[in-house]
Amino acid sequence: MSVKKIAILGSTGSIGTSTLSICESFPDRFQPVSLAAGRNLDVAVAQCKQWRPRLVSMATEELADQLAARLRSEGVTGIDVVHGTAGTVAVATLPEVDFVVSAIVGVSGLEATYEAVKAGKDIGLANKEALVAAGELIIAEARRNKVALLPIDSEHNAIHQCMRGGTAAEVKQIWLTASGGPFRSTPLDLFASITPAQALKHPTWVMGQRITIDSATMLNKGLEIIEACRLFDLPPAKVQVTIHPQSTIHSLVEYVDGSILAQLSVTDMRLPILYAMAYPERIPSELTFDMKSLSQLDFQQPDFARFPCLRLAYEAAEAGPAHCIALNAADEIAVAAFLEGRIPFLGIPRTIESVLQLTKPGHPASIQAVLTADHEARQLAREVALGQAATH
Amino acid sequence: MSVKKIAILGSTGSIGTSTLSICESFPDRFQPVSLAAGRNLDVAVAQCKQWRPRLVSMATEELADQLAARLRSEGVTGIDVVHGTAGTVAVATLPEVDFVVSAIVGVSGLEATYEAVKAGKDIGLANKEALVAAGELIIAEARRNKVALLPIDSEHNAIHQCMRGGTAAEVKQIWLTASGGPFRSTPLDLFASITPAQALKHPTWVMGQRITIDSATMLNKGLEIIEACRLFDLPPAKVQVTIHPQSTIHSLVEYVDGSILAQLSVTDMRLPILYAMAYPERIPSELTFDMKSLSQLDFQQPDFARFPCLRLAYEAAEAGPAHCIALNAADEIAVAAFLEGRIPFLGIPRTIESVLQLTKPGHPASIQAVLTADHEARQLAREVALGQAATH
Repeated sequence: MSVKKIAILGSTGSIGTSTLSICESFPDRFQPVSLAAGRNLDVAVAQCKQWRPRLVSMATEELADQLAARLRSEGVTGIDVVHGTAGTVAVATLPEVDFVVSAIVGVSGLEATYEAVKAGKDIGLANKEALVAAGELIIAEARRNKVALLPIDSEHNAIHQCMRGGTAAEVKQIWLTASGGPFRSTPLDLFASITPAQALKHPTWVMGQRITIDSATMLNKGLEIIEACRLFDLPPAKVQVTIHPQSTIHSLVEYVDGSILAQLSVTDMRLPILYAMAYPERIPSELTFDMKSLSQLDFQQPDFARFPCLRLAYEAAEAGPAHCIALNAADEIAVAAFLEGRIPFLGIPRTIESVLQLTKPGHPASIQAVLTADHEARQLAREVALGQAATH
Repeated sequence: MSVKKIAILGSTGSIGTSTLSICESFPDRFQPVSLAAGRNLDVAVAQCKQWRPRLVSMATEELADQLAARLRSEGVTGIDVVHGTAGTVAVATLPEVDFVVSAIVGVSGLEATYEAVKAGKDIGLANKEALVAAGELIIAEARRNKVALLPIDSEHNAIHQCMRGGTAAEVKQIWLTASGGPFRSTPLDLFASITPAQALKHPTWVMGQRITIDSATMLNKGLEIIEACRLFDLPPAKVQVTIHPQSTIHSLVEYVDGSILAQLSVTDMRLPILYAMAYPERIPSELTFDMKSLSQLDFQQPDFARFPCLRLAYEAAEAGPAHCIALNAADEIAVAAFLEGRIPFLGIPRTIESVLQLTKPGHPASIQAVLTADHEARQLAREVALGQAATH
């Protein structure tokens, strides 16, 4: 039993701190050796003091200088401090690292994740953009370097577990479960007047604003459809969604012989993270689901009239990488415009649909090309949203 | 892709005919070459004409002679006809056989199943007694001969599938689902007056009389607990039961890390049979579960006060092989006495409990010793039930 050396991209966020709490629970199994800590200086200092990593990266040179000074003043030595994208890449590709937890939100985590895959590190993947925007590139490199890409969001992690029950060729289709968000039973004629305050009330979890709105439009599930296509090499038609308000079953895999395997557990992000870090082993944890509390599980089918963003995601998945990049970028802009009161709730799918229609098919051949396509799609989405806002 | 040659013990029963319907659906994968057909002469003749097996066994010499005569008169040649236990063993151990479907009900299927395992045949196991009464012997031989024992009842088949998600050592516990039978919500004070007619109404399936009563007392689930202990090498404390009236989820495996895998499918015995025959592959079938019809799944915990037979099964499983044999034998006698109106419904667990108390711990070292222990337990159960009937 050897100690796995861990790099954490996004060590001060919720996935990052959960990863460190797992390292704390299993010190003989996992040791964090490099951290990309972003902008949270106080937490970065505390993590350096507790974990004594070899290498830490901050978002900017200024923050890196501040961290270095704080560490010096506290007598903490032996930690190299770097910064920026190059710093994050250095954290991700440190030679002694065995496993990289990729949990920087947005496109800024893309390059480091890609470089980690190229460097042959196994990856615990929480960054959606890696697969939605750069899935083709990352999957191709992962295959080339025989890297294990282990999803650490609950749905794809569930699929990964259920796919151990057969080969990829034996999968008929998969079913991602969705909470359905706050509007799964709202009368359709009220959708036009949904306010940001209504949309920000998620029935199950407290999350960031964009992901909360994405949950209300089910665009989040649309992004997960695209991720699943990439991760498990499935065409969009084989990736289904079922609304399951209790969020107890995290997803299901249907095999060609008619058997379906489902994964359930407590809703605690440490569980998929631990699964990914320990894979192919399973390590005993205290995160047990009380089967005796299991009383009722409900399921219903999502309706494209209610959730047009789901339909748009399938269309983007069919149309290819450029459209997947556009879907994600346009949604981010549209959600911001909705939260600012500039476009209505239904303006979100309208903006995305217009941007998708204006997007040309394409397969960006480098991370730089992905970032450029993302930038252009955002620009386009701003113009489209602005046009909507004028008529709002 | 080679054709698997199949022996069917119990070819004219429901598992047997389902197995043959699978052979019909996949003629390039499965070929039945030997059949133990029991007492149903007409069906045996039809199966011989359709499948032209090498070897067929009937229950008695007289039936074997009749079958041979019928085949001669219809011009069907090249089929050896044998009979009795030796005949069933010959069917099960025919050298060219790759896979044996063991579906003869009761202890009469025991010896042939054991000999098939000794002969190194992979087994699709539907015969409960094989594991309940002779589990130690059969599992030891299966290990020695590297034989795959594939359960073809829906619960254990589900567990087998879910256990592909980790190693046996990583299993924390398993959960067998149970319909709960017709009395899962009946007020407890009415149990004393339950009649055979009430107990024979099963909410979900039409089955044989003993298994229907066993479902009402949940003794059937008790036998499955013992089977699971043997098959998956688990102590009784790691085998749990949950009542799930829809019978959609067929069972679940809980891993040490907190993840639970569940298997669901249509309720069609061809599905576990096909799984077992095709293992480790999965073969496309038409037996698909309509996930879009999935709306609600309910679960509740079984109560030992309501289902004392469950408690007795755990006690027998803890006490060892002699008590497992006694549990099964005493139940069969007690159920017959109940159906004949000689003892009340609650007399079933009372009879079993008395027999278990009178049973000495033991590990029968041969199939013959198992059969002797079974015989003695039945004798004892008759005496106990007779005593109860006198005071009824």
